[in-house]
Amino acid sequence: MIRIGVIGYGYWGPNLVRNYMANPRTSVVAVSDFSAERLTQVQSLYPAIETTTDCGTLINNPAIDAVAIATPVASHYELAMAALQAGKHVFVEKPITSSAEEAKRLIEEADRRNLTLMVDHTFIYTGAIQKIHEVVREPSFGDLRYYDSTRVNLGIFQHDVNVLWDLAVHDLAILSHITLENPVAVSAVGHSHLPGQPANIAYLTLFFSNNLIAHVSVNWLSPVKVRRTLISGSNKMIVYDDLEASEKVKVYDNGITVAENADDIRKIKISYRTGDLWSPKVPSLEALQLEVDHFIDCIEQNRKPITSGEEGLTIVRILEAADQSMASQGAPVDLATI
Amino acid sequence: MIRIGVIGYGYWGPNLVRNYMANPRTSVVAVSDFSAERLTQVQSLYPAIETTTDCGTLINNPAIDAVAIATPVASHYELAMAALQAGKHVFVEKPITSSAEEAKRLIEEADRRNLTLMVDHTFIYTGAIQKIHEVVREPSFGDLRYYDSTRVNLGIFQHDVNVLWDLAVHDLAILSHITLENPVAVSAVGHSHLPGQPANIAYLTLFFSNNLIAHVSVNWLSPVKVRRTLISGSNKMIVYDDLEASEKVKVYDNGITVAENADDIRKIKISYRTGDLWSPKVPSLEALQLEVDHFIDCIEQNRKPITSGEEGLTIVRILEAADQSMASQGAPVDLATI
Amino acid sequence: MIRIGVIGYGYWGPNLVRNYMANPRTSVVAVSDFSAERLTQVQSLYPAIETTTDCGTLINNPAIDAVAIATPVASHYELAMAALQAGKHVFVEKPITSSAEEAKRLIEEADRRNLTLMVDHTFIYTGAIQKIHEVVREPSFGDLRYYDSTRVNLGIFQHDVNVLWDLAVHDLAILSHITLENPVAVSAVGHSHLPGQPANIAYLTLFFSNNLIAHVSVNWLSPVKVRRTLISGSNKMIVYDDLEASEKVKVYDNGITVAENADDIRKIKISYRTGDLWSPKVPSLEALQLEVDHFIDCIEQNRKPITSGEEGLTIVRILEAADQSMASQGAPVDLATI
Amino acid sequence: MIRIGVIGYGYWGPNLVRNYMANPRTSVVAVSDFSAERLTQVQSLYPAIETTTDCGTLINNPAIDAVAIATPVASHYELAMAALQAGKHVFVEKPITSSAEEAKRLIEEADRRNLTLMVDHTFIYTGAIQKIHEVVREPSFGDLRYYDSTRVNLGIFQHDVNVLWDLAVHDLAILSHITLENPVAVSAVGHSHLPGQPANIAYLTLFFSNNLIAHVSVNWLSPVKVRRTLISGSNKMIVYDDLEASEKVKVYDNGITVAENADDIRKIKISYRTGDLWSPKVPSLEALQLEVDHFIDCIEQNRKPITSGEEGLTIVRILEAADQSMASQGAPVDLATI
Repeated sequence: MIRIGVIGYGYWGPNLVRNYMANPRTSVVAVSDFSAERLTQVQSLYPAIETTTDCGTLINNPAIDAVAIATPVASHYELAMAALQAGKHVFVEKPITSSAEEAKRLIEEADRRNLTLMVDHTFIYTGAIQKIHEVVREPSFGDLRYYDSTRVNLGIFQHDVNVLWDLAVHDLAILSHITLENPVAVSAVGHSHLPGQPANIAYLTLFFSNNLIAHVSVNWLSPVKVRRTLISGSNKMIVYDDLEASEKVKVYDNGITVAENADDIRKIKISYRTGDLWSPKVPSLEALQLEVDHFIDCIEQNRKPITSGEEGLTIVRILEAADQSMASQGAPVDLATI
Repeated sequence: MIRIGVIGYGYWGPNLVRNYMANPRTSVVAVSDFSAERLTQVQSLYPAIETTTDCGTLINNPAIDAVAIATPVASHYELAMAALQAGKHVFVEKPITSSAEEAKRLIEEADRRNLTLMVDHTFIYTGAIQKIHEVVREPSFGDLRYYDSTRVNLGIFQHDVNVLWDLAVHDLAILSHITLENPVAVSAVGHSHLPGQPANIAYLTLFFSNNLIAHVSVNWLSPVKVRRTLISGSNKMIVYDDLEASEKVKVYDNGITVAENADDIRKIKISYRTGDLWSPKVPSLEALQLEVDHFIDCIEQNRKPITSGEEGLTIVRILEAADQSMASQGAPVDLATI
Repeated sequence: MIRIGVIGYGYWGPNLVRNYMANPRTSVVAVSDFSAERLTQVQSLYPAIETTTDCGTLINNPAIDAVAIATPVASHYELAMAALQAGKHVFVEKPITSSAEEAKRLIEEADRRNLTLMVDHTFIYTGAIQKIHEVVREPSFGDLRYYDSTRVNLGIFQHDVNVLWDLAVHDLAILSHITLENPVAVSAVGHSHLPGQPANIAYLTLFFSNNLIAHVSVNWLSPVKVRRTLISGSNKMIVYDDLEASEKVKVYDNGITVAENADDIRKIKISYRTGDLWSPKVPSLEALQLEVDHFIDCIEQNRKPITSGEEGLTIVRILEAADQSMASQGAPVDLATI
Repeated sequence: MIRIGVIGYGYWGPNLVRNYMANPRTSVVAVSDFSAERLTQVQSLYPAIETTTDCGTLINNPAIDAVAIATPVASHYELAMAALQAGKHVFVEKPITSSAEEAKRLIEEADRRNLTLMVDHTFIYTGAIQKIHEVVREPSFGDLRYYDSTRVNLGIFQHDVNVLWDLAVHDLAILSHITLENPVAVSAVGHSHLPGQPANIAYLTLFFSNNLIAHVSVNWLSPVKVRRTLISGSNKMIVYDDLEASEKVKVYDNGITVAENADDIRKIKISYRTGDLWSPKVPSLEALQLEVDHFIDCIEQNRKPITSGEEGLTIVRILEAADQSMASQGAPVDLATI
């Protein structure tokens, strides 16, 4: 039984507590949060869990084996480092840190102490992404051509990070997972509609050395929530809509036509799709259930998590480059040089 | 009765012929096309129309008052110029020409001869865009914040122009119509998946001097056809889905929250939208019917069309700048300098 | 070249004229309609077609080989009979007649004179129904279990027939086409919301001697148009949505569970579907093109049409029984007794 | 603090426990279930709750004020009666009992002992139905014309009740809530695809003495889950789709046309809807939260619940009549006579 301390009981923390409670191999021993009100909620649902407004107490609690961190990004590094230094395994929300430099230090500290450092790139553990990963890796899919994602949220402004660090981080994690290539350059544009605030709308392009291009559109001011990704191979294409209840993943047979004449073009222009469509049933297990299991497996077997500190670092490096490009209206930033 | 000659009976030409035939103020006198087979189709449906494979004959036919051009972009300039020089009014497919220079010359020629030059930016004449124009201009809409459009097609490659000139041209026309501002700079990225061919996937960002940003995503290799535009004002937001049969235009009351704490964020993150939604019934009249009427009005009353040659030029200038930016992986191009 | 006369240029007539004009094996010689205004539309689009307000002239025109009838149902019998008696082949809108008795007489007359009598059950000739027919007939589909269709229209009242005769007729034709069984009894309920008018909302159930049950919901007063049919086999199930542009036909692998315990039930209740989904690309050819070809084939080869007069009769018999059941609030009517 | 005992921890029980735990005015003291495995789940999530496989112990536990029953229908009467006789308030799953006779006895027992008897017609407490109730009651809605609901589930067979008692019960509760009229007769048809099992597909029609007709389509063997209800008034119409995340409730302005001629019909037939559409934002609070509050209010203030035992009885009476009609293939059953 791995004993867990959870820091932060805001948006995501309750999900962590619930899943770490439900797993028979783990138990939540303590929860810390700045807000006494939220701790009251913990107590009413789970009277057996200790609560504290002092995360230091939690981190240094000898009854705790691992710490799960669900606080604002700016505090990730400090909290994770303190936990590692106290000998705890660490499960930390995405993005792993505010900078590549911080991520590197956490990786080193975890390695030095032989502790598990795992970043919560949740989507990697969903049935949908697992199915997509499987389809993309099949030879019948062909070569990856593009990844094009729209991930826009209802009207909410955040203060601490821009929209790339909040939303594009998911796509960078997914893309890193399903492709074996690393991007060579990045171009990003964006805008803040509130003066002095971080960008609330942004568009990120990743260039690769092969025939792949990736684009991510993120936005905090959309009237509707959208989670829609097109993933194209040379033989098949995927539409992944995470808000679709019953058809999250659709796989289309390709039907590319090099249009030779106007009649071809007309025929295609008035069509709505090309080939047959196959939509596999995707298991609807909550991703966090799998993540909790995987975290515990990695601790017990001293394995590197799929979403390791290194994976977290890869994503943060791209985000830093994107910020740099965004500051110059899309001028490309070479990822080898930073 | 305005007598029309139509050049090009490929993808769009049949729509022109049908609409110019149906309008009681116009009649199609002749159709030219390189393909004898297509001309046979004209003859079987409309036995009274003359057909020819020689567009020169059509252009110089004294029984013709106006020429409608539905040929590949590269030929627009030459055909339109010949028609103007033969004293005909000109209705030409989008984009007006292959270059800003050519567009300027057509405008000058039409002005010199006092002839009507109209570019077929069809969307401007749809019920949906007219309704959107109306909503955006109402004070209750607030200031324009962003225009974000996805316009992707099934797998079809074209040889003559890249995907920006084929698809983004529609959004540039719509955007120019609904906003009073001109963009100051443009950043574009794209890729061709077939060596030596024009880019088949591209992303275009327009920067404005005020709080507006615009982004257009275009793609010839999508598994599904998408025509979806978000238009955001400071008080209301519009979702325009041109493939929706019954709810093309949705107007949402805004609900932006400057998130002060985790509970706010949570509440919004698990919502699917913010305020009430209103979806006006949009007239389903075919846009070309209106365009034909407008073209005739402009000829008879010697008025400038809404989609004048000058409008066509504005769009072509942006496309040229986009091509330049795309060649340098998104580096911004200042629209004042070109 | 088969020469066609079209009677009725209201809602459907223009489609008949266009398709009979476009087919190289047929030509429309004359159109008749009570409305001079509509005949003007014919003349402006097709100057070569004769028009008349006297359908008798058309029927007796020796230059005409076949008559297509697109008038209100009440007039079908008289017009079709006159055309047959004048030695013309007949293509008549659905339902074939207002009564089974009338349909029988037309069949006899056509047989006697060796003329082709075809009823325009359009859906039978669509790519969607052809694909469904194919799927249902494959052994892997299993036995037909139910056919459940919702076919509701926007707010429109008609005077001449009730909503079953207007809308359910389509489902009866489809059902008759895809199954080899005939129903043994029918129960129907309905209501008219305007006193003295035919029922504008109705529900029709067909009982079969085997494990199949069919239900059709029709309505003239719906806020939205719906065309949605579930067709269930013991191994696969079909969802057919005729308003879907890109996924008209979806075939689901079955996943029936005889729930043994609460956990099974829970697992299924929170799912959205059972097995994998396959959506074949359906050819988007206009059904009337195929129908015109089939009508000409039947005339030239002296073959019985797929949608023969006999098929039309089968459907009208069921509609008569449904009216009878509806008059007694759903009390079943045995189809063997009428 | 009202102390609750929950009987049954199968499909719905966990939701009851969670909501009664989260409410600050209630606390779950004990849970009983036949399955020791399920009780283990209770213990791991809520170590403070007593668990037992003997519901008698729970019912007679003096530390318990109210009993919530989430067991198969057949056991509702016996358990609820025992609880009432032990002086406990009762919250029971729908349908209240297996027969009207049983429901009457529970109502009498609760009345005699002045205890609260509430049936869990959950939908009545959803934001969607509350909004619909509000819209329907506004004079601008006009008179109710029809209620037409499709409520179909994935492939699952149940043994204890037929599909009407499982699914149509929801619509009967909703209909009873939003209208002030009671139906006068019922016609139902249905079929069981597994010999000897209860009907798994059924269609229920309710006749009223005024211009209203209601129809409910229920099915356990659908390939897709559907929850879609049309509610029509003489001036407005509602589409309620409970599976829609963001547009559960849509209100349409009516546009009924008494079609005078073919052109009217054509215009409407090619439309997709009539008037403007308004979709109010519906609060997404979990219905059970409201229900728990309402149950406690009723206990404390000795009030009759909105979904009282009497409401439960009304619905069960209709279900009994429906079974009777279904046995004779839709022959109508007069509700006054039973």
